[in-house]
Amino acid sequence: MTMTRQDCLRLDAQDPLAALREQFELPPDGIYLDGNSLGVLPRATAARVQQVVTNEWGRDLITSWNTAGWIDLPQRVGNKIARLVGADDNELVVADSTSVNLFKVLSAAAKIVRDESSEGGPPRRVIVSERDNFPTDLYIAESLCRELGWDLELLEADDIGQRLNEEVALLMLTQVNYRTGRMHDMAGLTAQAHAAGVRVVWDLAHSAGAVPVDLRAAQADFAVGCGYKYLNGGPGAPAFVWVNPEHAERFWQPLAGWMGHAAPFEFAPGYRPAAGIARYLCGTPPVLSMAALECGVDTLLAAEPLGGMAALRAKSVALTELYIELVDAHCAGLGLSVVSPREAARRGSQVCLAHAADGAAYPIVQALIARGVVGDFRAGDASTPDILRFGFTPLYTRFVDVWDAVEQLRQVLQSGEWSEARFNQRAAVT
Amino acid sequence: MTMTRQDCLRLDAQDPLAALREQFELPPDGIYLDGNSLGVLPRATAARVQQVVTNEWGRDLITSWNTAGWIDLPQRVGNKIARLVGADDNELVVADSTSVNLFKVLSAAAKIVRDESSEGGPPRRVIVSERDNFPTDLYIAESLCRELGWDLELLEADDIGQRLNEEVALLMLTQVNYRTGRMHDMAGLTAQAHAAGVRVVWDLAHSAGAVPVDLRAAQADFAVGCGYKYLNGGPGAPAFVWVNPEHAERFWQPLAGWMGHAAPFEFAPGYRPAAGIARYLCGTPPVLSMAALECGVDTLLAAEPLGGMAALRAKSVALTELYIELVDAHCAGLGLSVVSPREAARRGSQVCLAHAADGAAYPIVQALIARGVVGDFRAGDASTPDILRFGFTPLYTRFVDVWDAVEQLRQVLQSGEWSEARFNQRAAVT
Repeated sequence: MTMTRQDCLRLDAQDPLAALREQFELPPDGIYLDGNSLGVLPRATAARVQQVVTNEWGRDLITSWNTAGWIDLPQRVGNKIARLVGADDNELVVADSTSVNLFKVLSAAAKIVRDESSEGGPPRRVIVSERDNFPTDLYIAESLCRELGWDLELLEADDIGQRLNEEVALLMLTQVNYRTGRMHDMAGLTAQAHAAGVRVVWDLAHSAGAVPVDLRAAQADFAVGCGYKYLNGGPGAPAFVWVNPEHAERFWQPLAGWMGHAAPFEFAPGYRPAAGIARYLCGTPPVLSMAALECGVDTLLAAEPLGGMAALRAKSVALTELYIELVDAHCAGLGLSVVSPREAARRGSQVCLAHAADGAAYPIVQALIARGVVGDFRAGDASTPDILRFGFTPLYTRFVDVWDAVEQLRQVLQSGEWSEARFNQRAAVT
Repeated sequence: MTMTRQDCLRLDAQDPLAALREQFELPPDGIYLDGNSLGVLPRATAARVQQVVTNEWGRDLITSWNTAGWIDLPQRVGNKIARLVGADDNELVVADSTSVNLFKVLSAAAKIVRDESSEGGPPRRVIVSERDNFPTDLYIAESLCRELGWDLELLEADDIGQRLNEEVALLMLTQVNYRTGRMHDMAGLTAQAHAAGVRVVWDLAHSAGAVPVDLRAAQADFAVGCGYKYLNGGPGAPAFVWVNPEHAERFWQPLAGWMGHAAPFEFAPGYRPAAGIARYLCGTPPVLSMAALECGVDTLLAAEPLGGMAALRAKSVALTELYIELVDAHCAGLGLSVVSPREAARRGSQVCLAHAADGAAYPIVQALIARGVVGDFRAGDASTPDILRFGFTPLYTRFVDVWDAVEQLRQVLQSGEWSEARFNQRAAVT
């Protein structure tokens, strides 16, 4: 027997994490299932940003670099994110965008591989990634390959393991696929890569704050991640970068800006990289956006006394399992199929669906948005279907939200309202 | 006869730009002469940022990429900055930091030079810059030279012209020197460089919003600039990048992130650079900081009906001339010397002083700050003195502020209070 709405309300009443929802300014009506694209606004953020604007900038001006600790923001917020991804203090900094950070770590990783393989054997000149990886990752790797005269090889997820041989320099993967929600085995793939002499760069865009990550335990080499999804840092929030301390000081990264200098305020004409991860900083950080990001990260750290990422993951799995169960039960025969892995251990904190009718996914998403259920649409191509994507954020998504979201989906499909012309108007950003 | 305080008050009363000051939240007491480091808070910014946080993010969430035009911010704010630096619409975008943008344009410029010089002659493999250029510029160039096997040559300002020969690939200069305020002749040096087959990258960090710049008239090749100084964009505001349309589509820049893709929301696996300057975008922009920057740029555009940058420049020159005149008159015999060029045409919007006593500059700046006159200190080295640096922002600096700032300086020097131990405590950021 499938869960009733009453059952869901009971689960919410018993949920030990339920109070975490109070940290957010949620839209009064509607159900937001797009935290995997843009996390919702934490209650603390507006006041904190106002404080930065009015007091720290407006009143105290330039002195706030010292008195308000602006200069420490990249490391301070970095240390907080480190706690969510299995890194230690002073191993991770907030800086720039995910794309820019990828360029830094891929460049440094390429140098390390060249250094390690200079001892003999043919040169490793291939970066392997997943065909369905988030495009900006692929573009940055493609660009670096052009500079180095290397090749970028894009494979299906299941074919990656067997390609890791002595021709391959780097493996670059997003742990949780942005479209399907499929989750790679970080520790397993890293070990397999290392056994073949391949270094690994992980993009944690859909992992940080969504699933437990243990970079240290996985003996990962490099990682980057995004501040505006599950970290709730706000639109375009700065990203983060982690480098295994074993590698951090082996090479410069090419974006050798002054914030990564050993003594930036000496204003010396020659570059001298800072110790450790600080050399992965580049220019002056956007303080307003950094302050907002810190508030977002704090909403996740608030779960630490309640079991932290493990407890959030348990609820996330329960939410996504429930969603799949209810879609199966209530939307049977309405053309939907589940694209995300059905096995929870192989799935991040999102569920993706496809619809059998050509071109239906986009207007179904739009019809749901009109009813207040916000997910998003991701276009397919020759080999992958268009998808309806729904993110479940255990910090603020309730079990009853899941029930209601499926009910709205059922009504949209059964009524056929999604086929109305108004739901087919494409927006610039989809 | 030197100006009296009464004269200064009269100048302020007659100043046609005086009303522009009302756009800012100025500290109620004190005189801020550090807008060349961090511009002051515009009145409009707090409300605008709050609107972005509370309504656009908090209420409208992901839809704001379309409905609030977040996706257009880099180009929209870029078009506004373009009006301040002699560029046309769709030639300049806001993105990343100055350091990151420098890496983009130096990389692209290097490709163009290689392409142009492949036709014959020895390869050009030298980047020339000024020894006293802002360090982050030098670090980025040094790093790129390491990647390319090129050399970075640092020369004294006066020796640069004669070095521009067939060995040189690029000339990279900050138009207005961050320490001395000395201003290069952009059109003249660009023409000289071009005659020698050298491409030129201009850093407008201390120019944009401070002095009239005409990139088009100078036939400049590349330019970058800073959002948080004279553009009043707030701490760590995003930077900007301009590329002469003649070059913009000739090459990829290496930071080929998704925002620079021809169709970012197609999520295609292969990179296809956007037309024109948009290919110089990389990752997702920090929306909060971008919104604040737009408010800052608007404070400068408000001067357009009053004569724009030409009128601001006229006032800026009058302010710095007055400051030098009053320092000469009131602080004679107190150990000061003027480091900035005395000829207004060769000076940006700042005046720098040195003091004859070793180690005096830092505590003098601190003693002035204690009295409410905020300038800053920049350390010298073997060949340049420590300096006291004062920025004059015609949008909000009054003639009477100049008079009062010199009077406070005179009192600090005459009283000897600067030699008290408390003024010698070095802060992390100086």
